[in-house]
Amino acid sequence: MKNADKLVKTEYFTSTDPLPLESGHILPEFTLAYETYGTLNAARSNAILVLHALSGDAHAAGIHSASDKKPGWWDLYIGPGKPFDTDKYFIISSNVIGSCLGSTGPASVNPKTGKFYGLDFPIITIKDMVRAQERLISHLGIDTLLCVSGGSMGGMQALEWTITFPDRVLSAIPIATTPKLSPQSIAFHEVGRQAIMSDPNWNFGNYYNKKPPTKGLALARMIGHITYLSDTVMHEKFGRQLKSETHKYSYDFLTEFQVESYLHHQGDTFVKRFDANSYLYITKAMDYFDMTFETSSLEKTFSSVTAKFLVMSISSDWLFPSYQARELVDALKNNYKDVSYVEIESEHGHDSFLIEKDFEKYAKFIVPFLNYIHSEAQN
Amino acid sequence: MKNADKLVKTEYFTSTDPLPLESGHILPEFTLAYETYGTLNAARSNAILVLHALSGDAHAAGIHSASDKKPGWWDLYIGPGKPFDTDKYFIISSNVIGSCLGSTGPASVNPKTGKFYGLDFPIITIKDMVRAQERLISHLGIDTLLCVSGGSMGGMQALEWTITFPDRVLSAIPIATTPKLSPQSIAFHEVGRQAIMSDPNWNFGNYYNKKPPTKGLALARMIGHITYLSDTVMHEKFGRQLKSETHKYSYDFLTEFQVESYLHHQGDTFVKRFDANSYLYITKAMDYFDMTFETSSLEKTFSSVTAKFLVMSISSDWLFPSYQARELVDALKNNYKDVSYVEIESEHGHDSFLIEKDFEKYAKFIVPFLNYIHSEAQN
Repeated sequence: MKNADKLVKTEYFTSTDPLPLESGHILPEFTLAYETYGTLNAARSNAILVLHALSGDAHAAGIHSASDKKPGWWDLYIGPGKPFDTDKYFIISSNVIGSCLGSTGPASVNPKTGKFYGLDFPIITIKDMVRAQERLISHLGIDTLLCVSGGSMGGMQALEWTITFPDRVLSAIPIATTPKLSPQSIAFHEVGRQAIMSDPNWNFGNYYNKKPPTKGLALARMIGHITYLSDTVMHEKFGRQLKSETHKYSYDFLTEFQVESYLHHQGDTFVKRFDANSYLYITKAMDYFDMTFETSSLEKTFSSVTAKFLVMSISSDWLFPSYQARELVDALKNNYKDVSYVEIESEHGHDSFLIEKDFEKYAKFIVPFLNYIHSEAQN
Repeated sequence: MKNADKLVKTEYFTSTDPLPLESGHILPEFTLAYETYGTLNAARSNAILVLHALSGDAHAAGIHSASDKKPGWWDLYIGPGKPFDTDKYFIISSNVIGSCLGSTGPASVNPKTGKFYGLDFPIITIKDMVRAQERLISHLGIDTLLCVSGGSMGGMQALEWTITFPDRVLSAIPIATTPKLSPQSIAFHEVGRQAIMSDPNWNFGNYYNKKPPTKGLALARMIGHITYLSDTVMHEKFGRQLKSETHKYSYDFLTEFQVESYLHHQGDTFVKRFDANSYLYITKAMDYFDMTFETSSLEKTFSSVTAKFLVMSISSDWLFPSYQARELVDALKNNYKDVSYVEIESEHGHDSFLIEKDFEKYAKFIVPFLNYIHSEAQN
């Protein structure tokens, strides 16, 4: 039985202890959506935490019902005999606070007012997300995680885990990520946010009983999708192919090129599953991510980290280019930490870590790394 | 006297002969804004046509009045003793049809209806722009241009001139351009257009007596500006610098980072001088630009071209990457044409050809190339 055929269920953990946030605000209570795959061993020592990207959710593997067309977003990687091997490991996939996909965020009801949070939801950071997840891990009775891993914003969370809870993480596999978001990425995020906030339906975040700002959110998603693909793969996938099958331009403002169709489709699909305010909050959390902000140097930031690292970047990823991963790797090496680094040769751009064609390239490094961490932990 | 201090005036050429367009439509009449610098010699053999990019205008050099804070967009390059040396050459800078900056475009009045064109303006192409410019050149009594040159969309026009009017162009200097727009660039354009068309003030292009869609146009411009800068120069110019002078995040959705301020400023400034419909039409003209569309190969396209070429690309230009220039150069070489190619080493991205710091890198190739063309023409 393939894992894709395995029925799984999203679970929900609620913490009623107020969560102090980096902004100085306090979240009075919160819920995190999560899923687990595999079995926690008696020693509670085989748990791996998997973390999703900007628009992801807790549903990382398996299916929710027999009619599901697609399994979870990292089903390639999680399951029996797969890199995150559910025959050996207990995999936890956690959503983030700020999300609209089962966890507490701006689309949730504020217990203090009985109304939707909207913009009353406090600004959150990657560290806040991780602090909320730590409560979930404690709730599951786990002291120490064998590994934390994720791509893009998931990689940011993985890195943050190693700093914020060094005693609770044996290793990290951050993929296609950065220790601090670049000005170019902040710029793309800001344009996406402005697209949402310029949509009259946005109404200062107050739209939950009205028409949501779908046009603005679709635009934000379209911008995002351009950055997730490489120029090369855009040439391969679309080139200058027309939507029409005739080799004739239509000379109007309707959709002319296949690449435009693709973007419109991505935008239209996204607005059905994602909340515009969550998009604002989560991109903002990414913008604030800067592991040098307090220490002013990555070397200092990682000086007392205890986790072992497998850092992976993607050769054609121009959103989180390899030089950012190398800055991280250099900081770890300068601290004499146990770090391996791989640049995955791929033309698929930032999304490579989600793509079947590239799967083996990652698997061949993740499998031995986890074996090493696992056997070390048992000694 | 520096050329920047030289008073110049925009002139207007109107053609009342209908202009047949690539779309099959006909423009009943049109006006082109243009400026000239230097003196046309008696033989009318020293004329160089300079062509602007997406948002440019006819005002390439000098100032319009003593109170102007900035000279024309290529004042660095045009003037006495400058690469486009007005002591030797007669420089013509032409606007494009479709523009809102003095030429006939969607913001003009349709002579057939007495109303603003808006979306009744026909879709135009780079070839249409060039055909209109050819009328201007004839009007100025010039048979043969010594050179056509421009960056970005200006480079597309320069290339198109060599194909559409091979007998009238001795040489071309296309800079930071491509013989066919990439799917990634089409994608960025489409998101910009969707931003404009999603602005309720756009009103299907019918806003000339009402509030214009400034929010949408500002968004489109912000997206554009991200693509004009390299990741490296964004790090240098802005890094993660905050707008506030304190080293503290404000944790809100107001402008936090300098790079965001920069983009907002670019968007806000742009909407004061540019028309949203023109942005739609001109980006669309760029999207349609594909010199292989009819021939299906660049070799064939350039097989009967007679102009000599100096092709320049920019090492950090990710919008019009050097590989696109090299495709052009290869096609010319395979046809045994006279072509020189330079990749300018610069960290300034696509905008490098407009930037003072990089000026010398271009000048040292443009000056001898024009000397060579000029002396050949005199023999």
